[in-house]
Amino acid sequence: MTLRGRKKGEAVPQGVVARLPVYFRYLTDLERDGIERVSSAQLGEALDFTAAQIRSDLSCFGSFGQQGYGYNVKELLQQVQYILGLDQTYTMILVGAGNLGKAIASYDSFRSKGFEIKAIFDIDPLLIGNYLGGCVIRPYEELGSYLQENSVDIGIIATPKDSSQEVCDVLIASGVNSIWNFSPVQLVVTDQVIVEHMHLTDSLLRLAFRINEQFGTRSGV
Amino acid sequence: MTLRGRKKGEAVPQGVVARLPVYFRYLTDLERDGIERVSSAQLGEALDFTAAQIRSDLSCFGSFGQQGYGYNVKELLQQVQYILGLDQTYTMILVGAGNLGKAIASYDSFRSKGFEIKAIFDIDPLLIGNYLGGCVIRPYEELGSYLQENSVDIGIIATPKDSSQEVCDVLIASGVNSIWNFSPVQLVVTDQVIVEHMHLTDSLLRLAFRINEQFGTRSGV
Repeated sequence: MTLRGRKKGEAVPQGVVARLPVYFRYLTDLERDGIERVSSAQLGEALDFTAAQIRSDLSCFGSFGQQGYGYNVKELLQQVQYILGLDQTYTMILVGAGNLGKAIASYDSFRSKGFEIKAIFDIDPLLIGNYLGGCVIRPYEELGSYLQENSVDIGIIATPKDSSQEVCDVLIASGVNSIWNFSPVQLVVTDQVIVEHMHLTDSLLRLAFRINEQFGTRSGV
Repeated sequence: MTLRGRKKGEAVPQGVVARLPVYFRYLTDLERDGIERVSSAQLGEALDFTAAQIRSDLSCFGSFGQQGYGYNVKELLQQVQYILGLDQTYTMILVGAGNLGKAIASYDSFRSKGFEIKAIFDIDPLLIGNYLGGCVIRPYEELGSYLQENSVDIGIIATPKDSSQEVCDVLIASGVNSIWNFSPVQLVVTDQVIVEHMHLTDSLLRLAFRINEQFGTRSGV
């Protein structure tokens, strides 16, 4: 076992990655409430996963649990934080200060987890110069020169659909290789770039699908 | 084959559900650009899935493609829309008119897909009476009586963390059985209720995980 408890080069299944933040959130609540240990059955019940799935997920990263004892909450939380990379801090910039950009910049809970928005850019002259979440909104034309002078871990794209690929290209050309994309566009990037999509419409469409799957037709119709 | 091309009672795998909106988005673009047919290989290249995965995904809903021809874009898009339930309209209400609520209410692309926010509620006296995306913001105390008089398909929760479970309980007690949850809380609901989570922090944590997985450590460190 090497880096982060995994065998080197072994990719973690997407499903496990998707569930890690759920573990993190729940374990944070348990620790806050002073709970010291938790079994895989209890975790499963609370998170609506099977106990077997939980044991399988967590075993991807080494062996945490003890037969008959379960998991030590504090230790497991620390491991999950470490696995998620939350032992580090991340600098971010935000492009697009419209409604969605405002919501992102004002979202409280990133900073406490080590994610900090250092600069915000927009093309709208009416927005430039305003403050948002403690950052001044800069003209979009300054994005390239800002990136030459500052090291940025994550570029957040919250622009209208039509400009998101261009913004993405500028970010990548300036060495930002991790993108958090809120624009409803399938960005074209090379394999070296990581894009995490946050698509409101996709989420809503999944909900519509599940409504039809579960209820056959909508309620009240 | 019965309802929506699936065998009745056969659940569609989560992974397929997650990819359906991606197909929808891409096929919408193809149709807009006047492209009439597409092969599974082309779809795979554009969406970064394997051709085999695409054939397997779409076969969950019946057989669409033709050997040597590929898929008719218009037909496939109609099928995907139908599968997603986009042949229907959905009424929604929004609870929480803070920054995130504002972004949701102002998001353009829901309405054109048949999702309409009919009412918005908040507890903040400074917000009540203001208009947001064409809806007046009503006092939260009116939520129960509104739901008695109006049929609502989807309840959107964009409140602070501490009040989201209470709001969820009110929605469910009033017969809203589909929740779109933006609050970073694991809502407790019965099996009859569908919750689609839209957690900004979870998405950011997945990105951090992938940064560490791919780059070992952050760029610039």
